[in-house]
Amino acid sequence: MEHRIKAVLTDIDGVWTDGRIYLNEEGKSFKAFNNLDSVGVALLRLAEIPVIIITGEDSVVIRRRAEQLKINHVFTGARNKLLIAETILTDLDISLSECAYVGDDLADLPLLKAAGLSAVPDNAPELLKNQVSHILKKTGGSGAFREFSELVLQHCGILDEIINAFLNKISSKNY
Amino acid sequence: MEHRIKAVLTDIDGVWTDGRIYLNEEGKSFKAFNNLDSVGVALLRLAEIPVIIITGEDSVVIRRRAEQLKINHVFTGARNKLLIAETILTDLDISLSECAYVGDDLADLPLLKAAGLSAVPDNAPELLKNQVSHILKKTGGSGAFREFSELVLQHCGILDEIINAFLNKISSKNY
Amino acid sequence: MEHRIKAVLTDIDGVWTDGRIYLNEEGKSFKAFNNLDSVGVALLRLAEIPVIIITGEDSVVIRRRAEQLKINHVFTGARNKLLIAETILTDLDISLSECAYVGDDLADLPLLKAAGLSAVPDNAPELLKNQVSHILKKTGGSGAFREFSELVLQHCGILDEIINAFLNKISSKNY
Amino acid sequence: MEHRIKAVLTDIDGVWTDGRIYLNEEGKSFKAFNNLDSVGVALLRLAEIPVIIITGEDSVVIRRRAEQLKINHVFTGARNKLLIAETILTDLDISLSECAYVGDDLADLPLLKAAGLSAVPDNAPELLKNQVSHILKKTGGSGAFREFSELVLQHCGILDEIINAFLNKISSKNY
Repeated sequence: MEHRIKAVLTDIDGVWTDGRIYLNEEGKSFKAFNNLDSVGVALLRLAEIPVIIITGEDSVVIRRRAEQLKINHVFTGARNKLLIAETILTDLDISLSECAYVGDDLADLPLLKAAGLSAVPDNAPELLKNQVSHILKKTGGSGAFREFSELVLQHCGILDEIINAFLNKISSKNY
Repeated sequence: MEHRIKAVLTDIDGVWTDGRIYLNEEGKSFKAFNNLDSVGVALLRLAEIPVIIITGEDSVVIRRRAEQLKINHVFTGARNKLLIAETILTDLDISLSECAYVGDDLADLPLLKAAGLSAVPDNAPELLKNQVSHILKKTGGSGAFREFSELVLQHCGILDEIINAFLNKISSKNY
Repeated sequence: MEHRIKAVLTDIDGVWTDGRIYLNEEGKSFKAFNNLDSVGVALLRLAEIPVIIITGEDSVVIRRRAEQLKINHVFTGARNKLLIAETILTDLDISLSECAYVGDDLADLPLLKAAGLSAVPDNAPELLKNQVSHILKKTGGSGAFREFSELVLQHCGILDEIINAFLNKISSKNY
Repeated sequence: MEHRIKAVLTDIDGVWTDGRIYLNEEGKSFKAFNNLDSVGVALLRLAEIPVIIITGEDSVVIRRRAEQLKINHVFTGARNKLLIAETILTDLDISLSECAYVGDDLADLPLLKAAGLSAVPDNAPELLKNQVSHILKKTGGSGAFREFSELVLQHCGILDEIINAFLNKISSKNY
């Protein structure tokens, strides 16, 4: 299949969140994730497309969120994201041109340019917007990753099929 | 009364909240509820219409909120929401066509289609919007459930009566 | 002075906040106040107009915020707000027609109608908007109380004077 | 170089945040910072332009954020901000006309008027908007400081050079 995407790579801050870091007096932090994105992860799982998190933050919160969503590929504290992606993908025997990537800032630019399908949330810096294949309608933290998941499935020509599979699953008597 | 709604069923994340889950380093979470919705619950109580929470999340936070608002019917961790609703309603001797339901995502679709009156918040995925009887003006977490409560009372033809009853109650010397 | 306002009465949730209650698993809660409103309180203090909080919530968080801003008149858990206001004002020898009140929901309606100057934030239920003398441009939690403070000072004809006094104070060498 | 800016001075609440103070029952607070601004600080560091925080709040949270971003010049609890700025700048042998300042409220006005380049976020009180050289497109907490950082670098004629340096740095094999 020509348009097959074999993996979805994703930044977190500014994509899964609105970029905000809620910080308290002890230096502990919250991030605000969105349930719409959880369903995006579930749809990609039904399509057997792995989700790989690559984030510059060295954040325990992000690992907690990945655990909740049963995402095993989580790379935090990433500085050179392109190099990390290449290392991971070599292991998985996938090329970057077979991957989709969504990010929101300068540190994401090399990966956005190298990925086969790329997108930024609507509120990303203007500088990035003409370097990607798609600009999402949603802003970070408001369901941008969900929109991106559906975009990937659409690109693969399997969105309707996967949504129907999801609806069938949740309607099953044994579910 | 033709338009009588006998129970209001409701999703939580994305309806009572804007879908955000505030997560910290210990994996503990916050949700952001809205006081406008509390008054919605109060208005429905004055109308003697029970509120029934059916949510896919297995969340202590949701049970805390239900306690605050004295809502007894709370079903968390729901996977097949339609099946759960049917079980509850059989006990209460109410049919789904006599119920109103508000939800915001794919997992809510079977219930939205089965309920007598149905609505999604303005920011729900487009896919759901032509499957419901009403699209709310408010987004989730900004008073969408309050708007839905008033919509239900309007549909029953008792909105003005209930609002006057509320105003009389809070103006009572003994209140 | 014809337009003299002798006290500013205020609701909290939905005015000083956007109505959101951030709730965690232990039932503990956060509210999000806004620094713009702190300056509103400071301007009213310079004008020697007392600020009186009357809120339906029985909330420790609100008392903490009042402490931070050195507001002494704080009435939480208010059910019949009009009755409470009348009791307080009798003690202070002020009539309701000499007061300004800002609130955002049904429970505020009797006080909004009785106060000499009244306002709701832009996002208040439509029902309230034709019952008040002013509709604020700001929404709750985004500086609505600051806007209301300046409106009161404008109404009294002393806004420019008070702003200049504030600027002089912060520019003082000994401040 | 005519347009050289030698230091960036900045307010925090309402600029790095949307002005909101998340307060809990113990009087502890959160502030919501934005990752977009972190990159602004990184760009200014590459340009060797120091960032100096001057804030009226006496806030531990702000010092935590400054630590995270390795900002050494942090002055909290500032009342007369102009006086404090002058003291700091005398030590650094920089004049205010060689500095850029971004703030959002009345307490920032003297510094905004004295700085060589000045800006307020889009949601600042109207009163301030005709007293500054630039009005940012972003609101506080949504990347206003990032936009300001790029504005300063543009003003110095080195924005493209610094962005390229940033991209080279994150693409280095040894980074």
